[in-house]
Amino acid sequence: MIPVSHPTIMKMQEIVASGDHSGFAELLAENARFQPPTYWKTWTGREPVAAVLGHVAHVFSDFRYRRVLGEGKDWILEFQCKVGDLDAVGVDLITLNDDGLIEEIEVAMRPYKTVGALRDAMNARVMTDARFLKYREALS
Amino acid sequence: MIPVSHPTIMKMQEIVASGDHSGFAELLAENARFQPPTYWKTWTGREPVAAVLGHVAHVFSDFRYRRVLGEGKDWILEFQCKVGDLDAVGVDLITLNDDGLIEEIEVAMRPYKTVGALRDAMNARVMTDARFLKYREALS
Repeated sequence: MIPVSHPTIMKMQEIVASGDHSGFAELLAENARFQPPTYWKTWTGREPVAAVLGHVAHVFSDFRYRRVLGEGKDWILEFQCKVGDLDAVGVDLITLNDDGLIEEIEVAMRPYKTVGALRDAMNARVMTDARFLKYREALS
Repeated sequence: MIPVSHPTIMKMQEIVASGDHSGFAELLAENARFQPPTYWKTWTGREPVAAVLGHVAHVFSDFRYRRVLGEGKDWILEFQCKVGDLDAVGVDLITLNDDGLIEEIEVAMRPYKTVGALRDAMNARVMTDARFLKYREALS
């Protein structure tokens, strides 16, 4: 069977594996949307979405992608990780745009307890990140 | 593009759409495992897994599958639904066995609040279902 992927998806996996998220913004469409596992809201815009995902990367440890399924513009990346000493499994539900950039990332995770720990850790980080003063309008 | 699916996955979608889960057990391997979004444990065995998923089906409303991605034994079904008046998005992370039966279903969801409501609703249902007295050993 021929392994199928997409350059953006492969690059995304490389960046996440490297631990250096500085190149992530280049994979995002200008109007990229991010829907977090923690609450029913959407972050909009390349800069704020990259900033939020940068914080997520610091909260997750022992991160590893598992199955990557998809074709064309539709990709789902299954992952496992830890938040503190709690285990988690999740997915990046991705839609690419016509230029092959990430237009939408929705993240679903399990279990409940770990997502609660993620929420607390993210709130603490974002509250002390001055950039989020101007990003407030990006959350709706 | 040729739409690709698997008979078991198509049958699963039909059953879920019909609202009548009585045929679901036939799609499960005898040693099927279910890992819920609510806690970090695993249900093992066709009968208990079918019983748990039957309760989930009653707790979810306005259920709709979105993208179905996969090939061979690996399938991910993206869905949206409600728990009470709360919105949710989730995925069924599925692995089939050599006979094309479901060997593993892991479910990840968002957001946190809805999964809390799901947990409460499931606890209430399972506690009043006498079958779960004998299923207790199926949870590890």
